[in-house]
Amino acid sequence: MIRAGIVGGTGYSGVELLRLLAAHPDVSLAAITSRGEAGRPVADLFPNLRGYVDLSFTDPAAGDLENCDVVFFATPHGVAQSLSPGLLEKGIKVIDLSADFRIRDVALWEKWYNQPHGCPELVDEAVYGLPETNRDAIRRARLIACPGCYPTSVLLGFLPLLERGLADNADLIASAASGSSGAGRQANVGTLLAEAGESFKAYGASGHRHLPEIRQGLEDVAGGEVGITFVPHLLPMVRGIHATLYATVKDKTVDLQALYEERFRDEPFVDVMPPGSHPETRTVRGSNTCRISVFRPQGGDKVVILVVEDNLVKGASGQAIQNMNLLFDLPENAGLMAPAPMP
Amino acid sequence: MIRAGIVGGTGYSGVELLRLLAAHPDVSLAAITSRGEAGRPVADLFPNLRGYVDLSFTDPAAGDLENCDVVFFATPHGVAQSLSPGLLEKGIKVIDLSADFRIRDVALWEKWYNQPHGCPELVDEAVYGLPETNRDAIRRARLIACPGCYPTSVLLGFLPLLERGLADNADLIASAASGSSGAGRQANVGTLLAEAGESFKAYGASGHRHLPEIRQGLEDVAGGEVGITFVPHLLPMVRGIHATLYATVKDKTVDLQALYEERFRDEPFVDVMPPGSHPETRTVRGSNTCRISVFRPQGGDKVVILVVEDNLVKGASGQAIQNMNLLFDLPENAGLMAPAPMP
Amino acid sequence: MIRAGIVGGTGYSGVELLRLLAAHPDVSLAAITSRGEAGRPVADLFPNLRGYVDLSFTDPAAGDLENCDVVFFATPHGVAQSLSPGLLEKGIKVIDLSADFRIRDVALWEKWYNQPHGCPELVDEAVYGLPETNRDAIRRARLIACPGCYPTSVLLGFLPLLERGLADNADLIASAASGSSGAGRQANVGTLLAEAGESFKAYGASGHRHLPEIRQGLEDVAGGEVGITFVPHLLPMVRGIHATLYATVKDKTVDLQALYEERFRDEPFVDVMPPGSHPETRTVRGSNTCRISVFRPQGGDKVVILVVEDNLVKGASGQAIQNMNLLFDLPENAGLMAPAPMP
Amino acid sequence: MIRAGIVGGTGYSGVELLRLLAAHPDVSLAAITSRGEAGRPVADLFPNLRGYVDLSFTDPAAGDLENCDVVFFATPHGVAQSLSPGLLEKGIKVIDLSADFRIRDVALWEKWYNQPHGCPELVDEAVYGLPETNRDAIRRARLIACPGCYPTSVLLGFLPLLERGLADNADLIASAASGSSGAGRQANVGTLLAEAGESFKAYGASGHRHLPEIRQGLEDVAGGEVGITFVPHLLPMVRGIHATLYATVKDKTVDLQALYEERFRDEPFVDVMPPGSHPETRTVRGSNTCRISVFRPQGGDKVVILVVEDNLVKGASGQAIQNMNLLFDLPENAGLMAPAPMP
Repeated sequence: MIRAGIVGGTGYSGVELLRLLAAHPDVSLAAITSRGEAGRPVADLFPNLRGYVDLSFTDPAAGDLENCDVVFFATPHGVAQSLSPGLLEKGIKVIDLSADFRIRDVALWEKWYNQPHGCPELVDEAVYGLPETNRDAIRRARLIACPGCYPTSVLLGFLPLLERGLADNADLIASAASGSSGAGRQANVGTLLAEAGESFKAYGASGHRHLPEIRQGLEDVAGGEVGITFVPHLLPMVRGIHATLYATVKDKTVDLQALYEERFRDEPFVDVMPPGSHPETRTVRGSNTCRISVFRPQGGDKVVILVVEDNLVKGASGQAIQNMNLLFDLPENAGLMAPAPMP
Repeated sequence: MIRAGIVGGTGYSGVELLRLLAAHPDVSLAAITSRGEAGRPVADLFPNLRGYVDLSFTDPAAGDLENCDVVFFATPHGVAQSLSPGLLEKGIKVIDLSADFRIRDVALWEKWYNQPHGCPELVDEAVYGLPETNRDAIRRARLIACPGCYPTSVLLGFLPLLERGLADNADLIASAASGSSGAGRQANVGTLLAEAGESFKAYGASGHRHLPEIRQGLEDVAGGEVGITFVPHLLPMVRGIHATLYATVKDKTVDLQALYEERFRDEPFVDVMPPGSHPETRTVRGSNTCRISVFRPQGGDKVVILVVEDNLVKGASGQAIQNMNLLFDLPENAGLMAPAPMP
Repeated sequence: MIRAGIVGGTGYSGVELLRLLAAHPDVSLAAITSRGEAGRPVADLFPNLRGYVDLSFTDPAAGDLENCDVVFFATPHGVAQSLSPGLLEKGIKVIDLSADFRIRDVALWEKWYNQPHGCPELVDEAVYGLPETNRDAIRRARLIACPGCYPTSVLLGFLPLLERGLADNADLIASAASGSSGAGRQANVGTLLAEAGESFKAYGASGHRHLPEIRQGLEDVAGGEVGITFVPHLLPMVRGIHATLYATVKDKTVDLQALYEERFRDEPFVDVMPPGSHPETRTVRGSNTCRISVFRPQGGDKVVILVVEDNLVKGASGQAIQNMNLLFDLPENAGLMAPAPMP
Repeated sequence: MIRAGIVGGTGYSGVELLRLLAAHPDVSLAAITSRGEAGRPVADLFPNLRGYVDLSFTDPAAGDLENCDVVFFATPHGVAQSLSPGLLEKGIKVIDLSADFRIRDVALWEKWYNQPHGCPELVDEAVYGLPETNRDAIRRARLIACPGCYPTSVLLGFLPLLERGLADNADLIASAASGSSGAGRQANVGTLLAEAGESFKAYGASGHRHLPEIRQGLEDVAGGEVGITFVPHLLPMVRGIHATLYATVKDKTVDLQALYEERFRDEPFVDVMPPGSHPETRTVRGSNTCRISVFRPQGGDKVVILVVEDNLVKGASGQAIQNMNLLFDLPENAGLMAPAPMP
């Protein structure tokens, strides 16, 4: 059994890690830390885990993480930068769900996150944990930077086009929308049910922190500069991300459906839908699957790609476990095999 | 024109007062205070009012309230107790939407609100602002204590039975549910969309602050002691209260439908539905109407009364304006004549 | 492997059976019938099952059910009455999720369901599938009548009180609320999102079909007549049932918390919450767990019991599988071990 | 008083017309027809109108419409084509909320609506009822074709750019989302709360009926061909449309904020938000206002325009009344002056 620890288990990606790891056949939960909730049983804060998780939160200073084989960071940015070096030194693998090691350009990170980077020396070593593009490097990594929720959906959706150089890379558009769990478990007027319920709005239209990460990921795939406009929106629901992607193809004769099906044929967590389908976020709720449809409306040169994922699973904790499975040579879908409930 | 001021205009009953007063034909908005937002245009915080309200928030210390004919308190408890005496002295009428003057027993108030009462000398003078039971006293009042949102629905629903002594007063049950705007515009993890959305729960089952108010109101009507069990619930929606009331009737031959229709025939804001109807909260959203249905299932001695209201209108700001209309001898429904949109 | 068939797989309890059985370690899905959708792949109608269920719907006349060890009916009432005798004759176990065999009094059934009973000769043999009261009989049954969604929550909540004769049986009240999936996957104006969203209402206040089933179940437990008032409500959400139960205790010294904890200590799917807790429906979404809290407000003689369940799992398909596990001597929680996701 | 009739009052734009006309100071409701509901009081079907509308539905054959000054069609397509000629002959003005007379190219209409046009001879005379572009023609019209809900938001959003020739007209993108009331009051599995709640999806990505209307409207403004990609989405909420529009500007030095503010300065129902604002659909719920923000992210040449409206008000019934006001020389905002409630 792999001994797993979680730093920062009181947020939504923390509790989702707990839910998934509690059912994972090859993992034992060894420790979960929270400064604020130390001593409190996890299942007291998250009653869905009553009977499944017996652990209590411990103080990160207590040293419980040192007995782990792998430690997940489900923390605000900055924390993994400060604690990872010590863990790595002891031979413990680190899987970071925060933004700390996602951007290779340290100055760019500092600009968007508005603080000095706490661990620039590990940035180069960190592997960007998107298995669909990076599987081999992930297997060999010590430190994995899990992609953000929006970047996962946008990158997977554009991947087949950009890898093959089929689109005008200068003019990509990502109109995406997330359920409000994406804003985290923080007291905040703007994401109260009374504020965000029964309404819809864009946010961050002038620039969102996921933009440099998206651009970096697209440029890695395209092998050159890309122009991307990204507008996120807040949905009046709890879970799910939907990305509607627009690109211009250079060649209208390419069979996009075949391209996408072929590209993702062997991917355990990417499902290309039949032609004409519109994926619904509810079909992936609680599951690690990402569903994609591709259209070329009226036979023109505009391509519309629709992508859905659960922001807390494939967009966070599920993908982290998929990375862990690769890292420890387990079946890639271990612990991730439950379909979404519907309705 | 009546010059109206609002203390504490940044919460939900504050903005609802603004919306209703902005359209009131006989009122001019003179001042709205907020210590935290002083100087900020109201319509900046509440964009629905762009083009309707030009006022900016002012500091309560600035003295703008002194030029008002009436001042509404849309504040947490404690504030109206401290500021009302000064306003009343200047001949300004006070309509308090908070709980400060609702309970006549000062010790009981202090027990449930867990602080010393700041103005016990005005408690006796304050008139409980439920027009359906107190219309004449309201017309002559200087200080009106508007009922709480739950008490309004529970009192109106039980009124016809208790006034006539038709029920077993020792055994009344009120199972009520509110949209999350009832929790106010406060940053709070428990009322985040991600927490309260797509879920339902009771709260305060061992005792809620509206209980002593409900008991006092019922006892006033019944003319003696009553036993009431009150369980509030939190609905995954923004606005609306639904109360499901249970009582035992002493005489199964009473025509309850006729009783309720007759009791409320002349009430402008209480609508008794046809037999067999189930009122929906959406039919009163944004309106000051309260809808009531009454059942005696299977001809037994249990009566089921269903009541809906908008917690922010008849349960707060609309009722406050209804009180103001009475106080200033205006048509009781002035400014309160818009039907709810549906769907 | 147990070979399982499903009659009527296009509704919500059908697809939920599919989801749960697809992940059940001891079951193979052998057939799923639908007259209207014969030939269509199941995963085409329910994309959440893409990659998990390869079956297509078949016509019930095609005979695929005859190779099954057990057949589930997820059909409107009347169907199981007509098809069960033929299956039972062939030695196939029948687990009926519909109301066909729940009521032992055939005349009562016919009154509430407004049609002649199609199979009165099997009514006596049918075992009411509530494991918490009927476990031994379930193990030996050929034909199981799974409880309705509301009855499951109401019966479990009142069970400890009534078994021990602690309450006034003549005066029980159940105020319950369900997500709109309880209305089934039927085109219907009343349960459109535009009608039932952002609103709350009671329905069936004068009498709901689950009432006679609830009364029968309570009387079985109490060993005598009971008086129960049952008012269901429609929640603006998809899944979940919450029951708020009111009873009067004869003896105020009984330790209710201990009573409930002890009664359900060995039940794998009933979780008694710590004192003072209010269970939320979201903590059981997609899971077979039922959570219960018990209060005696202000130390009076009224007891308030709060119960949550997922109407499609413990209230339907999960409970059906729990029954199947008992019937085939499997671990009672086989295939039912996933916790709810939260948020 | 203007005597107004409504054909097809049982749908959502019908009941919204009723709500708004009931409060209109210059209109008396003369007749509302429905074949299916003839004889039934309107307030029986729509309880929000109890006390506001006393009319009953009448059969369209009964002739009540002939006494009207203006008749609104809130019907499925095809009906206004068949009944308008007779009304116009009698000198009655016709305001059609359906798609019957929106498209000037009859063959194009027949292709997208898949049936022969029933009244091609009136197509040229019909005036497209978007006051912001067509005010003078509307004042002089006999027959007004009200814009669709999506087209209203898309046209208003692109208007300032296209009128001035500032954008690349060949590459416009409209990613829009609507609450489920846009699907109408029709029994339909796809828009059940249990299907469309707590989920998000695109639909009609390969071509939606509003596309040719949008293209015609944009080309009218641009004075030449435009290329537009339009993808609508279904929101898990009742009311509101949000359009996120993307265009490429030819000249990055243009002050877009000033352009938009100036263009709409005198428009009573278009509110250009301050720089950096993101309009929320809830701020216009129930109101005829459309709110717009404009961004040029990171100073590039992509423009992002955010537009919100209430699909049933500015997107349907409110705009129809705005047109009626122009037609009868009333203040343009008569009956349309209530702000949205918030929250």
